[in-house]
Amino acid sequence: MTMAEPDAPHDAVPDGTPRRDTYTPESLLAVAVEVFIDRGYDGTSMEHLSRAAGISKSSIYHHVRGKEELLERAVGRALDGLFGVLDEPAADHGRAVDRLEHVLRRTVEVLMAELPYVTLLLRVRGNTRTERWAMERRREFDQRMADLLKAAVAEGDLRSDIDVRLATRLLFGMVNSLVEWYRPAGGGTLSSDEVADTVVRIAFDGLRT
Amino acid sequence: MTMAEPDAPHDAVPDGTPRRDTYTPESLLAVAVEVFIDRGYDGTSMEHLSRAAGISKSSIYHHVRGKEELLERAVGRALDGLFGVLDEPAADHGRAVDRLEHVLRRTVEVLMAELPYVTLLLRVRGNTRTERWAMERRREFDQRMADLLKAAVAEGDLRSDIDVRLATRLLFGMVNSLVEWYRPAGGGTLSSDEVADTVVRIAFDGLRT
Repeated sequence: MTMAEPDAPHDAVPDGTPRRDTYTPESLLAVAVEVFIDRGYDGTSMEHLSRAAGISKSSIYHHVRGKEELLERAVGRALDGLFGVLDEPAADHGRAVDRLEHVLRRTVEVLMAELPYVTLLLRVRGNTRTERWAMERRREFDQRMADLLKAAVAEGDLRSDIDVRLATRLLFGMVNSLVEWYRPAGGGTLSSDEVADTVVRIAFDGLRT
Repeated sequence: MTMAEPDAPHDAVPDGTPRRDTYTPESLLAVAVEVFIDRGYDGTSMEHLSRAAGISKSSIYHHVRGKEELLERAVGRALDGLFGVLDEPAADHGRAVDRLEHVLRRTVEVLMAELPYVTLLLRVRGNTRTERWAMERRREFDQRMADLLKAAVAEGDLRSDIDVRLATRLLFGMVNSLVEWYRPAGGGTLSSDEVADTVVRIAFDGLRT
């Protein structure tokens, strides 16, 4: 295919340079997520998205109804990954402490694999329907984690001298901090296995010898 | 003193309502920090600060040279609190593991006492001189923590099967997550002692019985 083919979708970016819209829903989403993280969702206009993607606004509207649909797909992808972990057999059967370990480990993996999507999810605050939905789903996930921790305490495998809600927040504070400092390109020496192992060691057995 | 006193500093907010500038450097800073957190430092103009404070821009310029000075004072306050911890005798004498425990505990306390200032410090990214300085100081603090952890491993008190830099990031990820979920007004049932105790328990001994 060449640019000259009559049925190729042509387009013009704001500066007037024509450019083919070769985006898939997936690749357009990846561009949008970077812009949302960079400028904040509120601070992002269709104009910004158009400039970052190098295609016109009308081309973007060809793919999605608007920026809120892009947000919905992006945080949906992060949430699908996280809730998917809870549906895995190892998260659903056995002692609560083993299920919790599995979920912690897999959450680290999902976070590292879907870094920009989870970063966006963790930064969402606001008043659109999609933002409220994302925050509600996050609370649901936190609640499932707190329940798991509580069950592990009840089964005698985790210490009972801690506040379960507080411990849940601290554990996921530790895991979620990955979005602040982990950069796949920067050095790239840490595998997700290594990070997951260290999280599990600190969380369950602590740093002391 | 009344508004009518001839030497009282008068002022007008953008909507035209006159208002006395009764700010101290401290109270003006508190207002500015809330606006910076809310809109982001880049997204905040002197106009926004003037509106939030209810005094004119020229009144603000009476207190500070501009918004960067406000940022410098705000993150400076957070950094003074954090580095102050490292200068405390218990952070400076004794076994590294005990010094680390002291620093973790006191960092939680500083974070909760100076919540908006530390929140701003943790969100700073950017290209102004002040932002670069703040990021450099944060790295310095992280380095001091990593050194302490390393020393505690060398003294045989902390496990040696973990990457020290990674563990430092995870520990402070746990502590720093406080700025995301801790709200002094919301419920207000958690004391800083309780939070500090739980952080120290998880970090050193883990959750397992």
